[in-house]
Amino acid sequence: MLVCHKITELQEAIQAFRAKKSSVPIISVGFVPTMGYLHIGHESLLKKARSQNDLVVLSIFVNPLQFGPNEDFDTYPRNTEKDLELAKRAEVDMVFLPTVEEIYPQYPLATKITIGDISSRLCGASRPGHFDGVLTIVSKLFHIVQPNQAYFGQKDIQQVAIIEQMVQDLNMPVQIIACPTVREPDGLAFSSRNVYLEPDERSQAVILSKALKKVDEWLSLPDITVKQLEERLTLEINLAPLANIEYASILAYPALQPLIANVPIHHAEHSQLNQQVVIAVAVKFGQTRLIDNRIISLGGALHA
Amino acid sequence: MLVCHKITELQEAIQAFRAKKSSVPIISVGFVPTMGYLHIGHESLLKKARSQNDLVVLSIFVNPLQFGPNEDFDTYPRNTEKDLELAKRAEVDMVFLPTVEEIYPQYPLATKITIGDISSRLCGASRPGHFDGVLTIVSKLFHIVQPNQAYFGQKDIQQVAIIEQMVQDLNMPVQIIACPTVREPDGLAFSSRNVYLEPDERSQAVILSKALKKVDEWLSLPDITVKQLEERLTLEINLAPLANIEYASILAYPALQPLIANVPIHHAEHSQLNQQVVIAVAVKFGQTRLIDNRIISLGGALHA
Repeated sequence: MLVCHKITELQEAIQAFRAKKSSVPIISVGFVPTMGYLHIGHESLLKKARSQNDLVVLSIFVNPLQFGPNEDFDTYPRNTEKDLELAKRAEVDMVFLPTVEEIYPQYPLATKITIGDISSRLCGASRPGHFDGVLTIVSKLFHIVQPNQAYFGQKDIQQVAIIEQMVQDLNMPVQIIACPTVREPDGLAFSSRNVYLEPDERSQAVILSKALKKVDEWLSLPDITVKQLEERLTLEINLAPLANIEYASILAYPALQPLIANVPIHHAEHSQLNQQVVIAVAVKFGQTRLIDNRIISLGGALHA
Repeated sequence: MLVCHKITELQEAIQAFRAKKSSVPIISVGFVPTMGYLHIGHESLLKKARSQNDLVVLSIFVNPLQFGPNEDFDTYPRNTEKDLELAKRAEVDMVFLPTVEEIYPQYPLATKITIGDISSRLCGASRPGHFDGVLTIVSKLFHIVQPNQAYFGQKDIQQVAIIEQMVQDLNMPVQIIACPTVREPDGLAFSSRNVYLEPDERSQAVILSKALKKVDEWLSLPDITVKQLEERLTLEINLAPLANIEYASILAYPALQPLIANVPIHHAEHSQLNQQVVIAVAVKFGQTRLIDNRIISLGGALHA
């Protein structure tokens, strides 16, 4: 496994790999961009990438541009040694581990990638500029690695939707593959930020996945409206005394447009407009902000 | 010469070319993006591309996103037949001729590429959003064609500076090659918009290149300030009665930052700050807006 700290070093290695294999008609490069502190969720992305590509590239970079001034950039958990062990186990070929100066010789950049409405809702509402920072780093990494496939976790569903939109709008030659959320045995979605949770917060945090599961029951009520569903979700999460809800919302997916609040969710007005909706929650436990979501097909089967 | 109207058609053709030549270690693709109505200036870009690459791709697309609501998108001159003849003469391999719907299935796009200060000066001041539109289409075309080299005319110097900045900021894997402005025998820079000029406007339009040439004389005055140079430039252009100056400015290049107006241009304060300055003019003759420029190295040789 090759570990590169410099952009040119990585690009030369990938080019050499492509040249060496030039007898193979199409070399497929799979890419998993991360902020490190890897967990089983990341591992599942790497395994998927390994199974679908000739070359697997992992990047580990805590991107300052996607953190707000009062967010946890400085304290975001980091453990490169453990990350590299996991990468080796997952048979990663190349790890890109750049410094901030390597990625941002000037900071901030003059160039900015922004996206409309879709970035202003859900997490975008409380994290202004966050998704611009995500789009910029993802765009840079895509240009550096030039992958055929890139793998993202469905846990960060808004990130997936926004990156898909950028790739489509800008004709980026990469396929985005969204992978299912991986969960602890009790249902809590794996997240690098879970490490922040105090024991009582950790035990109550299970309410996110529990509440999202309960949606199945509520959806069996034929006339339940979007608003009523959101209210039930909110009530359910608030059963955990330490839970502090930031949002518990149902939106069309992948456009992330609001649905009509007082119209039954099973009404044709919704199922015509969108085949899919996302039920997304963001909840703070103490200082720790957790997110989770489910995508459901209206009138169809439920997706985990 | 292959003419493609569809993105997938072009991409498959380029991929097939790359695959066919897979014995050659590196296949070089040269790309000349244009808005058509090709003239000798474009031809010089195509010749340069032909001399440096295995495959030459020309795109012809009048990009609505870079025209303001009161600009000449609808009347911008078009002549595909003549363009294809010129492309054949220049030994272009592939011409990409997309429809607006092919490039913008949704219009406008959700995704936007913007760039700071550098886009607000010179042409950016009177054409808000113009350079965002340029960056977006160039980014799309780069992702579609995936060229190794892309060729632009130095006549559109702000466009060159802005695209260079985007490529650098976003690590785009393409080299930007700026080619010298090609001129009519009397000095007028070739432009697709020259066709709009009435005979008396055409004859007076020569004042742009004449005034830019006179800069050499003025620069020989050891204490001439930035402001004085701009004033002389303005006076000179105003000798043409039909000239209506939009700007006649001297800025650091490629940052396009203002210089200190009352400091002599040869002063160390300028030559330390920047090796190069651009002298740029935009002048209207009737409804027709013409631009021209020169880049000079302070304290060094002059560039045409």
